[in-house]
Amino acid sequence: MVAEQTLTDQYLRVRAHSEAICRGLETEDYVVQPIADVSPPKWHLGHTTWFWETFVLVPNAPGYRIFHDDFSYVFNSYYETVGKRVLRTDRGNLSRPTVSGVYEYRAYVDEHMRRFLDQARYESPEQYALIELGLNHEQQHQELLISDIKYILGNNPLLPPVAMPMVTEQENRFLSASAHPSIRLPEGVYTIGHPCSTEAEDQPFHFDNEEAVHKVYLNETTLSGELVTNGEYLAFMEAGGYQDFRYWLADGWAWVSDNGVQAPMYWHQVEGAWWQYTFDGLAPVDPAVPVCHVSHYEADAYARWKGRRLPTEFEWEAAARLPGSQLNWGMRWEWTRSAYLPYPGFVTAEGAVGEYNGKFMSGQMVLRGASVATPEGHSRPTYRNFFQPDKRWQFTGIRLVSQ
Amino acid sequence: MVAEQTLTDQYLRVRAHSEAICRGLETEDYVVQPIADVSPPKWHLGHTTWFWETFVLVPNAPGYRIFHDDFSYVFNSYYETVGKRVLRTDRGNLSRPTVSGVYEYRAYVDEHMRRFLDQARYESPEQYALIELGLNHEQQHQELLISDIKYILGNNPLLPPVAMPMVTEQENRFLSASAHPSIRLPEGVYTIGHPCSTEAEDQPFHFDNEEAVHKVYLNETTLSGELVTNGEYLAFMEAGGYQDFRYWLADGWAWVSDNGVQAPMYWHQVEGAWWQYTFDGLAPVDPAVPVCHVSHYEADAYARWKGRRLPTEFEWEAAARLPGSQLNWGMRWEWTRSAYLPYPGFVTAEGAVGEYNGKFMSGQMVLRGASVATPEGHSRPTYRNFFQPDKRWQFTGIRLVSQ
Amino acid sequence: MVAEQTLTDQYLRVRAHSEAICRGLETEDYVVQPIADVSPPKWHLGHTTWFWETFVLVPNAPGYRIFHDDFSYVFNSYYETVGKRVLRTDRGNLSRPTVSGVYEYRAYVDEHMRRFLDQARYESPEQYALIELGLNHEQQHQELLISDIKYILGNNPLLPPVAMPMVTEQENRFLSASAHPSIRLPEGVYTIGHPCSTEAEDQPFHFDNEEAVHKVYLNETTLSGELVTNGEYLAFMEAGGYQDFRYWLADGWAWVSDNGVQAPMYWHQVEGAWWQYTFDGLAPVDPAVPVCHVSHYEADAYARWKGRRLPTEFEWEAAARLPGSQLNWGMRWEWTRSAYLPYPGFVTAEGAVGEYNGKFMSGQMVLRGASVATPEGHSRPTYRNFFQPDKRWQFTGIRLVSQ
Amino acid sequence: MVAEQTLTDQYLRVRAHSEAICRGLETEDYVVQPIADVSPPKWHLGHTTWFWETFVLVPNAPGYRIFHDDFSYVFNSYYETVGKRVLRTDRGNLSRPTVSGVYEYRAYVDEHMRRFLDQARYESPEQYALIELGLNHEQQHQELLISDIKYILGNNPLLPPVAMPMVTEQENRFLSASAHPSIRLPEGVYTIGHPCSTEAEDQPFHFDNEEAVHKVYLNETTLSGELVTNGEYLAFMEAGGYQDFRYWLADGWAWVSDNGVQAPMYWHQVEGAWWQYTFDGLAPVDPAVPVCHVSHYEADAYARWKGRRLPTEFEWEAAARLPGSQLNWGMRWEWTRSAYLPYPGFVTAEGAVGEYNGKFMSGQMVLRGASVATPEGHSRPTYRNFFQPDKRWQFTGIRLVSQ
Repeated sequence: MVAEQTLTDQYLRVRAHSEAICRGLETEDYVVQPIADVSPPKWHLGHTTWFWETFVLVPNAPGYRIFHDDFSYVFNSYYETVGKRVLRTDRGNLSRPTVSGVYEYRAYVDEHMRRFLDQARYESPEQYALIELGLNHEQQHQELLISDIKYILGNNPLLPPVAMPMVTEQENRFLSASAHPSIRLPEGVYTIGHPCSTEAEDQPFHFDNEEAVHKVYLNETTLSGELVTNGEYLAFMEAGGYQDFRYWLADGWAWVSDNGVQAPMYWHQVEGAWWQYTFDGLAPVDPAVPVCHVSHYEADAYARWKGRRLPTEFEWEAAARLPGSQLNWGMRWEWTRSAYLPYPGFVTAEGAVGEYNGKFMSGQMVLRGASVATPEGHSRPTYRNFFQPDKRWQFTGIRLVSQ
Repeated sequence: MVAEQTLTDQYLRVRAHSEAICRGLETEDYVVQPIADVSPPKWHLGHTTWFWETFVLVPNAPGYRIFHDDFSYVFNSYYETVGKRVLRTDRGNLSRPTVSGVYEYRAYVDEHMRRFLDQARYESPEQYALIELGLNHEQQHQELLISDIKYILGNNPLLPPVAMPMVTEQENRFLSASAHPSIRLPEGVYTIGHPCSTEAEDQPFHFDNEEAVHKVYLNETTLSGELVTNGEYLAFMEAGGYQDFRYWLADGWAWVSDNGVQAPMYWHQVEGAWWQYTFDGLAPVDPAVPVCHVSHYEADAYARWKGRRLPTEFEWEAAARLPGSQLNWGMRWEWTRSAYLPYPGFVTAEGAVGEYNGKFMSGQMVLRGASVATPEGHSRPTYRNFFQPDKRWQFTGIRLVSQ
Repeated sequence: MVAEQTLTDQYLRVRAHSEAICRGLETEDYVVQPIADVSPPKWHLGHTTWFWETFVLVPNAPGYRIFHDDFSYVFNSYYETVGKRVLRTDRGNLSRPTVSGVYEYRAYVDEHMRRFLDQARYESPEQYALIELGLNHEQQHQELLISDIKYILGNNPLLPPVAMPMVTEQENRFLSASAHPSIRLPEGVYTIGHPCSTEAEDQPFHFDNEEAVHKVYLNETTLSGELVTNGEYLAFMEAGGYQDFRYWLADGWAWVSDNGVQAPMYWHQVEGAWWQYTFDGLAPVDPAVPVCHVSHYEADAYARWKGRRLPTEFEWEAAARLPGSQLNWGMRWEWTRSAYLPYPGFVTAEGAVGEYNGKFMSGQMVLRGASVATPEGHSRPTYRNFFQPDKRWQFTGIRLVSQ
Repeated sequence: MVAEQTLTDQYLRVRAHSEAICRGLETEDYVVQPIADVSPPKWHLGHTTWFWETFVLVPNAPGYRIFHDDFSYVFNSYYETVGKRVLRTDRGNLSRPTVSGVYEYRAYVDEHMRRFLDQARYESPEQYALIELGLNHEQQHQELLISDIKYILGNNPLLPPVAMPMVTEQENRFLSASAHPSIRLPEGVYTIGHPCSTEAEDQPFHFDNEEAVHKVYLNETTLSGELVTNGEYLAFMEAGGYQDFRYWLADGWAWVSDNGVQAPMYWHQVEGAWWQYTFDGLAPVDPAVPVCHVSHYEADAYARWKGRRLPTEFEWEAAARLPGSQLNWGMRWEWTRSAYLPYPGFVTAEGAVGEYNGKFMSGQMVLRGASVATPEGHSRPTYRNFFQPDKRWQFTGIRLVSQ
């Protein structure tokens, strides 16, 4: 967040960005949910609005009247403390509220938020923290919006293109750059994590799962300066990587076999050549671009085939925070070999907000970095993203470490 | 079909009726598929159009160019002879083609059909039969459109009303009538079924599953003159009918237990009173109206509780065709105790059209009559409808027979 | 039942036959349940014993003490009126009671039954009927024992042979006979079903689902004098019958596709030749023997491929009861095209016994006749067997009817 | 392994122990597989024998002839390099080979192993390592045998006792001891893991997943000196711990809800009091004994309810290896908060043996320590056990750490 902006400005800018992402959609594209992981775009637009209404306006804005009695049921995601909700798998069954109804909901809440923020009631640290959380929450959904839209259209038999300027621009920003050197990480004790909000004043925003600062001991390693490219990954495919169980985790091999996986998501083989779905429609796979839309299983198998391994999340963070570090990150969420677990000293916050990131789940792996779909100002070296190891509809990629 | 109309007139009237059914919908309502049985309304509109394009225009209209290469994949329902198709369960995942795209498709095909019909090419008996089949096919989808729309909105947490004039009008048409006497069916041999098209010239339209005429022997029975009402069904509920396994078929009892069924579909208990979703929104259950949206299991259990039984499809047809019969039918599809099986002498037609009704399936039960959602001119005493015994999103009801 | 025997003799003979079927088994063979349809042999031996204890001894033998408190829970099959029971799918998880424990249970109950029967308390018609029902119930389980044992061993990778003299003998008894002529059934009204026990004194035993006598009208047909042979069925296979959807019911085609079915159960292709598992181990398929272990779907598809059809259960019964009929039946349960439904006038009996055959279920097809595994004295022209259309571990076969 | 024993002695002692565990079983108990996790005891006895035959005798004993051609198919567990195998979920469907057949197989292989070991061919380090691996492999299956037998009998409605002297003795060995003090772990760098076999001569046996030695940085913590007792766990239950989502991981809460979990495995509430199944049959829950048969989810929820947490596997190992450590372990496998991941520097071994522990799988949690079911000589501070977080049929318990 740029400090000179008013909070109202920041709020309106973030809110506008969510809508900008959807500008190219047809009404119908807002509605469907082809798999449980993917939410309908109108649900994202409504849910982020419900977050502001429920956690900021209702408790803090005197006289605020909620927009619609049933929207809490429709747009609650998983907050058990805030009542019943539509099952996640049923979101795509809801034709109502309509898309224009959701935009009206957004306009109504934005108007009340604007008034609320202008009246500077947010000056208490708690309210300020809540608004910062709301902004970052909406930014998380912006990246989900982009990947969910890609899934919805990329799995439609018509493979329609859609205007998505915030992604296409960025796809090439790293490519013109010269090659990046690998990063050597000397053996020793490193500091990991973000200071707790309670430990230090004026901390920049971070999620609670980045807390608390603690030390880890790392052996010497070298991280690759570049992400694995489509061309390199194609070599793994052509060497029979998807057919040889030795490269795969036991559950990864079951995933490959049960689903007949043979290539990254969105790849299609047409008359011998490989194409991939992009926001511009079907395009030839470019061998020089970092591979995208691979699962943790695929990342891990590729590394084993290569005789290398994935970094731990601690190695990644240490490398990104090395003084003068030139770790070239930001194009792909980078799978690590670390399971997603609370840091030592982590304490779950109270109340509904405590469910936010305190809702740990076993069986997820950490991703570090950011991607071409991550909004501006929403990435930092301590950021911890996490997904089940079979997920690949996010903009995920691979960085290797010497064994 | 009224004879004085031209075929073009008939065609345009049927096609307009499909669109009239959807007039009250929001764009979003056209898209969703909350359960596998329910297809998105835009899919019905597209599929019926694809039928005309594929079976009438492509083989018969010289120079006709298909509207879009991929639409056959999207809008084929199950015709294996006509190539691949979207899985039935995936229809609700498709945001494209858009609703307006589907209406353009309809307009394009209608224009070519109009030209084709005006040029009187249909005068060959085969072409005439094909067009009649297409009209009746579209009428079948009209009833599905109505019940699918009811399911989509009646399972939305907002329970929104929608304009559906062709149904609301009819809901009361039988109610003002005086009570109907029961119908005694004397023991003996009866004639069942529709003459084959090849047996007699100028046969009115019928589906092939109504063929061929054959004899059955029926014991004496008496069919109730009235359908079971909401009030009567409520008595079954209040007597613990859903809790006592003795009234249920073995698979029916498993269905009740596994799904926690406690009332007909669309019924909601609010503070002790029973309400039901209708096209006008939530309304109190009217005890005088025939019960609707019950499964075969529920119909059968109700009858057993009452010490009666459901009619066979033969008893029903015989009663409806008795000289001077006053069987009062047409409000609800009436579950029979007959499994859906081909009649003696049935022969599957050749080619894709042979898949149409020749596609028998074990495990379905016959329904007879028609409902308030059945289009004008699409019902007759020989008509055979059929569904799995757990289905109840159609406008289904119960008529009893003395044991 | 031979009239000259005492009831005690009959009882002991039937009970001994159940144990004779199991004589060749290893202890381990009594325990497993490879699929839900197949029960462990020790369960059959215990369940039939529980039937005698629960329905005959407990209510009628003064001072009888049940063998073990928990056996009702273990050996109840589905009688909801008699309390809780082990889930059908969990029967193979029970190592206890042991096999010898089950034989002790049998000996204990047999001793008490012997005393009970000798004291002639059964002379009331109700008690006599109950004992006849128990004998026939045990005979039904004898056929299930044979087919379940075949499944257990025929799906073991060692394909072990087992002594089963009561079946092997019979396998050839029809083969030496000369060819049988086909049976012409003239058009007309036929009488079907067994008189109700209440309608006539001294009725020979029959199940309630054979009641009541009623008339049906049949069109002229001709039933084949011979069952379809392995050789004829092989011609269907070699003509691509399993690969062409046109021959299959819609649900049959789904069954073939989902399960990769390519041949009757127990058939194995070894270096180009077809073998089948028998109680003597793996043996070459004999083209002259009637095909066995086919599902209704396969029977129906074969008939359609042949341009013929399966008989209705009424045609079958009428043919078997024609004066001087020479219908050659008894080797295979013959699939009919009739769904299993109660006859007109059927009334469910009261109490637990009423669950016995009154427990109708939609979605099952009728089989007529008997098989090489059917015990002596347990077959008659009115007998109605029934299974879901995908089942084929019984000794099922195919008879055709001219279209 | 005691050094003075000959390898032959060690081999025969380990092999005899497997059979001793089964001494109290009925033949039927060897056969069943009530859930996929539990293998039939005869399968364990056969599989461990197959391991010796396949990996020791076939490649190393000249002239050895395998016992039975099909046993590799039956008794291979998951080694993809050694060919096809029976699906894990189908092991309980196999009545053959019989139990006595499996014991013959054991005797045959033991005789050949005895000859082989006596001829001292094992003196090459590779062969010695292979034999040590085989002994430890069989010991792992001994613990599985005990927990699988407990599951088989503890889920039988008769709840039969069984002689299992090797467990009952141990259940009380820790109880008479005086209370154990908690262990303070000072902040700093600790050494974790076992030296690689290649790094040092004469290393005592360890599995490859304990390799390699590496450093970790630990913050100060204090481990409880005692495991959580039944009485303490009961307090959690009575405080509504199973009903409050706030204590549970997101996937743990789903597990509790979907399965209706309300108590540890084998606990039964009878007229208000809690009983548990033991090898002696049903017994009252003793509040002083460490709680057993809890999942990771339950352990984690208990800790959160208590305002504490589970140790990491590194904290546990460091505490167990502290000079003069008095960590009181060995009664229960202790759930840690660590996901099961390869250590830095881990290298998968080549060949089938490389599948042994190199077969990592995401989504499993590490358990440390040992249990009353662990065989003598099969535990050490570096040992890493691992299971999915919902598993609880092992002898699992809870140790807390100050937050």
